[in-house]
Amino acid sequence: MSKGILMVVSGPSGCGKGTVLAEIVKSDNIFYSVSATTRSPRPGETDGINYHFLTKDKFEEMIDDEGMLEYASYCGNYYGTPLKPVEDMLEKGCHVILEIEVQGAMKIKEKCPDAVFIFILPPSLKELRRRLEKRGTESAEVIEKRLGEAAGEIAHAYKYDYAVVNGDLSKAVNDIKSIIRAEELKTAKIKNTINEVLENA
Amino acid sequence: MSKGILMVVSGPSGCGKGTVLAEIVKSDNIFYSVSATTRSPRPGETDGINYHFLTKDKFEEMIDDEGMLEYASYCGNYYGTPLKPVEDMLEKGCHVILEIEVQGAMKIKEKCPDAVFIFILPPSLKELRRRLEKRGTESAEVIEKRLGEAAGEIAHAYKYDYAVVNGDLSKAVNDIKSIIRAEELKTAKIKNTINEVLENA
Repeated sequence: MSKGILMVVSGPSGCGKGTVLAEIVKSDNIFYSVSATTRSPRPGETDGINYHFLTKDKFEEMIDDEGMLEYASYCGNYYGTPLKPVEDMLEKGCHVILEIEVQGAMKIKEKCPDAVFIFILPPSLKELRRRLEKRGTESAEVIEKRLGEAAGEIAHAYKYDYAVVNGDLSKAVNDIKSIIRAEELKTAKIKNTINEVLENA
Repeated sequence: MSKGILMVVSGPSGCGKGTVLAEIVKSDNIFYSVSATTRSPRPGETDGINYHFLTKDKFEEMIDDEGMLEYASYCGNYYGTPLKPVEDMLEKGCHVILEIEVQGAMKIKEKCPDAVFIFILPPSLKELRRRLEKRGTESAEVIEKRLGEAAGEIAHAYKYDYAVVNGDLSKAVNDIKSIIRAEELKTAKIKNTINEVLENA
């Protein structure tokens, strides 16, 4: 059996990547990688679902043991991707989706050259503004800040293997499914299939 | 507008690549590259549809002018791929499918590193034998020869970017459509899209 594919997905806040990926992980063999953090759970958050909630000691022990695929600290807390569950899934032939910001993605690119990097784009910055304003949860000032950050992130999109515009949800979902299927069909990944055809004479 | 994608497709006789590609070229923006040959048209063959039928002088003139993407001679006749129609289609943003045997494909790989190489596999050599026997047009001896050639060609499949098993026609067609869509979404091909998102602020 072939190993699964590690897919690293980034996109600016408001591009709708959460909604797109929620559709993608409905497939049987695709799993979402749950991050680890040392921050406290918020009301309604469940350990192992929203995050793996770890103590600072445990997190630092995992860093020392090379048990984190990548990590960063933010506002005094660690956030990272535990390596073992990702490796276990890939070994079983399942695909793993890792939703992460640009800097984390670039760290993974160095460590995992076989991973597939997908950037999700909003149709335009104008539409991104409209979506952020529609949420109604952020001040005009914060929205300006988010738009500036978004433009900065989008400028890195060319470092990814693929870019998918999320204008229409079902189109974006189908685009990502096409990417996954195409990656499954790469000859580098299916040497077994080629050998099986030849053996079954 | 982005340039189209040149897709080079190979597969052993009996793998059903003709049937698969006939479905693919039903899409609006995908064209089949018509080969040129110096052999005489057979009854029912139309110039420009089955082949571009050329004189030996014209064909050799095109070789000298670097007007052939690749060519080979077989049983005293030339067969080749005229470059200009392929280039014109790609410039217009259309995709071009070139169905060609392994050696021709490898020549194109040297000249066109951006082309996408797809190998179509039968489900097994056993199934390939069954299909060749079912046709009923070839002797047992010829079938053995074809199977030997097929095994030799399949051994080159790993040199292609993608391999698609044609067991079920609609699955194989969808697999190739996924490959085309994924290739369209590669960031190397959509710098324009990324810039448009940023410009429309």
